[in-house]
Formats: sequence, C-alpha cells, structure tokens
Amino acid sequence: MSLKIKHLSKSFGTTESLKNVSLTFEPQTIYGLLGRNGAGKSTLMSILNNRIIPNDNSETKVTLDDEPLLENDKQLSRLFLMSEVNLYPNNMRVKTIFKWTERFFGDFDWDLAQRMTDHFNLNTKKRLQSLSTGYRTIAKIIIALCTPSDYVFLDEPVLGMDAANRKLFYSFIIEAYEKRPRTFVISTHIIDEIASLIETAIVINNGEIISQIDIDELQMKGKVVSGPQEDATIYTANLNVIGADYLGGSADIYTIGDLPKPVPANLTVSGMTLQNYFVQLTTRDTDKLN
Amino acid sequence: MSLKIKHLSKSFGTTESLKNVSLTFEPQTIYGLLGRNGAGKSTLMSILNNRIIPNDNSETKVTLDDEPLLENDKQLSRLFLMSEVNLYPNNMRVKTIFKWTERFFGDFDWDLAQRMTDHFNLNTKKRLQSLSTGYRTIAKIIIALCTPSDYVFLDEPVLGMDAANRKLFYSFIIEAYEKRPRTFVISTHIIDEIASLIETAIVINNGEIISQIDIDELQMKGKVVSGPQEDATIYTANLNVIGADYLGGSADIYTIGDLPKPVPANLTVSGMTLQNYFVQLTTRDTDKLN
Repeated sequence: MSLKIKHLSKSFGTTESLKNVSLTFEPQTIYGLLGRNGAGKSTLMSILNNRIIPNDNSETKVTLDDEPLLENDKQLSRLFLMSEVNLYPNNMRVKTIFKWTERFFGDFDWDLAQRMTDHFNLNTKKRLQSLSTGYRTIAKIIIALCTPSDYVFLDEPVLGMDAANRKLFYSFIIEAYEKRPRTFVISTHIIDEIASLIETAIVINNGEIISQIDIDELQMKGKVVSGPQEDATIYTANLNVIGADYLGGSADIYTIGDLPKPVPANLTVSGMTLQNYFVQLTTRDTDKLN
Repeated sequence: MSLKIKHLSKSFGTTESLKNVSLTFEPQTIYGLLGRNGAGKSTLMSILNNRIIPNDNSETKVTLDDEPLLENDKQLSRLFLMSEVNLYPNNMRVKTIFKWTERFFGDFDWDLAQRMTDHFNLNTKKRLQSLSTGYRTIAKIIIALCTPSDYVFLDEPVLGMDAANRKLFYSFIIEAYEKRPRTFVISTHIIDEIASLIETAIVINNGEIISQIDIDELQMKGKVVSGPQEDATIYTANLNVIGADYLGGSADIYTIGDLPKPVPANLTVSGMTLQNYFVQLTTRDTDKLN
C-alpha cells in the first residue's frame, strides 16, 4: 500500500527537470517536498497527477498500491493536486466550484468547507477572478482538504496568504488528517512553519532527490557546532558534516549524528532547524552578493 | 515633493475595498504596506498606477509633486507597479520583456539586470509561461528594480520565492536604493523579513489605514510586558496598549511608549517585532479554531 515512483525523468527541450527520480509515498503520512525555485517540485507533482507526461523510458514505473498509476483513471481519481495553475473557469463562483468538485470526486466534506470559509472569512458567492491572490489560494486549499482523495499534493498551499491565515491552514490540515488520515505532500518556501506538521522531509535539488529524512530524527540528531573555526573543524572531523558557515575566525558546522563527549569548552552545540538543514544542502556560490 | 492621496475610496459592487484613504508617500523612502488578505493593498497600488479607477468623488485628490497623477501620462510614467497580474504576453521571452521595458520607460539598468540574472540563475531566453512561479516572480522583480521610476510599488515581490532568493532580493533592493535612491512601497506577508529594510510601516485593515509608524520608533518604543495577568494589567493600565495575549493566568501586553520605572520584579519586558505589532492590530476572533 503506497505510491511508488521508479526511474522517473522529465526533460523540457535541453533542460532536465527531473533526473531518474525514485521515491515512495506511504499512505497516511504528511510529507514536506522541499526544493529551491526551479528544483523540479511542481514538475514531479504534475506528472503524478497526469498533467505532464514523463519522458518515455521503459524503466520508469509509477504505481499506486501496485497498480500502474499514470493513465489509470480509477487510481488517478484517488489523487488530488492543488497547484498554482488554475483548472477552474475564472468566472465561476467559489460555491459552484465546490459543487463541481463533489460531482467529479463523488464526495465533498461540506462541514469542513463551511468551517473553513467561516474562519477564513471567504465569500463563496464571489467569482474566482475577483478574489485577491491570498483568497484564491484559500479557496483552493478548502477544495483540496474537502475532497475524498487518499493522496493530496499541495504545491505552495500558502502562496500569498497572511501569517494568521497560514496558521489557520496548518490547524485545518491537522484537523482534516485526524478526522480522516491520508497522505499530504506539501511543497512550500516557508519551511520552518511546516516543520512541526510533517513527518518526513524530501529534498529535491536540480531535479534529483538528494535527501529524505524523518523530522524526529533530524530533531534528535541534527546539531550545529559553533566556535573558533580550527577547534570546531577538528572536533567534527570524523562526523557526518552536511555543511558549514564561516564568518571571521568562527564557524557553524552542521552535523547529523551523535557527538563525541565531552564537547570542548570553547564550542557550543545547538539544535538544527529544518530550514538550516535545507539551506546547507541547497546553498550555491551565487546566493550572496560579492 | 511627494505622492499625496486624499479621500480615496473604491467599491466593487457592495464591497467597500478602500474607505476614504488619505496617505503621503515621501520621495526616496522605503515603505512596507502591510495588511491581511483582502485588506485593500493591491487595490490601492492598482489605483495609483492607473489600472483601476477609484470611485467618482469630488473630494478625492491624488497628486505627484503637486500635479494631478491619475490620467496624467507624464506623471504616471514616473511610477512602476510590479504585481501578480501579468501585463506581458505569456509567450514573450524574458530578455525581450527587458528590451520592451527599456523602450517604454526610456531607460533600463542593464548592469543590474545582468548581475541579478546571474545571481538568481535566471535563463532570460525562456518564455514567461515556461518559468516556475518563483522564477516568474524573479523576472518581474528584475524589471521593477531596473526601470528608471521614482516610485516603485512591489505587490508581493517574494511570492513563491525560496528563502535564499528572498535574501538575495532584499540585498538587491538595498543596492538599487543606494545606487539611486527612490521610493519603494513593498507589500508582503513575510513581515519580519522586511522589517530591517523599510523605514516606515503602513498598516491597512478592511480598506482603512489604521497605522503608520516609523520602524526606528517601533524598535525603541514597542515593548511586550509579560507576567501574571493581574500584575501585568495593573502595571500597563495607563500606558498606550495596542493589544494583549492571555494564556492560563499569564499575559503578554503590547505597549508603545516609555515604561514607568521600576518594572515590577515579576514582570519581564521584551522588544516588540513588526510582526507582533501587525498581528495585534489586525487579529480577529475567527483566527483560532475553537
């Protein structure tokens, strides 16, 4: 029981957007899909939801509960993708889209939809085109949370949403999950805000999956060793170092795993946030101005 | 020398999006325009840039350096609005849009555009429609920073951008401002990230300007008094309290202004962030799930 991807690639012209991706999404699990702009997040989610066709490659396999997924309408209807691309007619009223979604998916959680429209203060009589960026996003997340899908992909679900509304959304995700556990795959650039929501973080960079880590493990084993550069470097020499920041003679060295005891007195150890972890894995030389 | 707005209102059907707004934007100043989703930020910026017509009202006056602004092409050409709405043909290549912008505005900072495309790793040969959400935003901010405008309005300039690219953008704003001081009006929902960038924060709520505050003043005078609810309430009774959070028997009380000395020993005082300030002014009963 899971969504399995094997050897999936996608090129647009000479650009390789996805390079031989293999990945498994387990049922009833909340994932964060993290990547820089242009890393391939949206391409991956669009392929899984049959909006983009992958490269033709005999090794590629995408299955849901061991049945082929792509071009299989029965299995595809168990997935839902909320994305920036708008599949609804712009002049349709929000409440009409709710009804249309119910007809299409065979079910719709009207109670949750009502509570969400009340809390977000969304006027469902409005047409999609007359909503602000943030409210367009709000309408879309309500739809995504109220469909009966088993695998819900949320591509930038908080795009343009204010901080209080983002918080409300995170609470509603938890409520929806508790009421009916399902898999959520959430892609976002406000990483620290979803750290407490997700079980597993998947990091994609330049079209490749470069890390998949359990959040509890990261919280237990991710450490930042700070202090004089030479001492910090010697102390962490045999550890699993994923990156470092240097400023003047000081260093912050990012490690995963147990630290040898005792820690030298001139070094300090602090926890590594998900944002730290992500930045260390995906930083580039051009990220700073000279 | 300034952009002055007096008694500006805008209704869409029965919805009053802007209610009698009066406001001045000084030259060479960086503003944050902060508001909840649907508060009226985009409507205000769109009116100033002649994309939306305000209500017909004889008291309304919008002037730039004492000349009427709206429907005055010479003055309007000194303003630029970067918004979510895309004014460029979707199949146009990014570099063609740069050239088109130069022709339209009479100048374009090609050096800055080159440095920005290099740092952001933007392929300017790509067509707008083939860019990801984040890269579409990146293309737009490059255009906004390279035009010769005196008043640049940035409506959600970091929409869909990853954290490292957001940082780069803030650095480029400072660089562009230092090279040629101009007014930037920045609307964003990632408030703490722009606190160090802006000089003045303007808060708009339900179509009304409810606060305009100097950031230095906020940093000096904004305080959070925390401790047992009764003691904190008594201590702050005669102060300028803008809001409070209560949890159990404890309170965080948000005040602007000098605190009487000495502070009682069971209370602690900390600084108020811009995000704190904004949340206290704009929070609603429905912002929490019951």
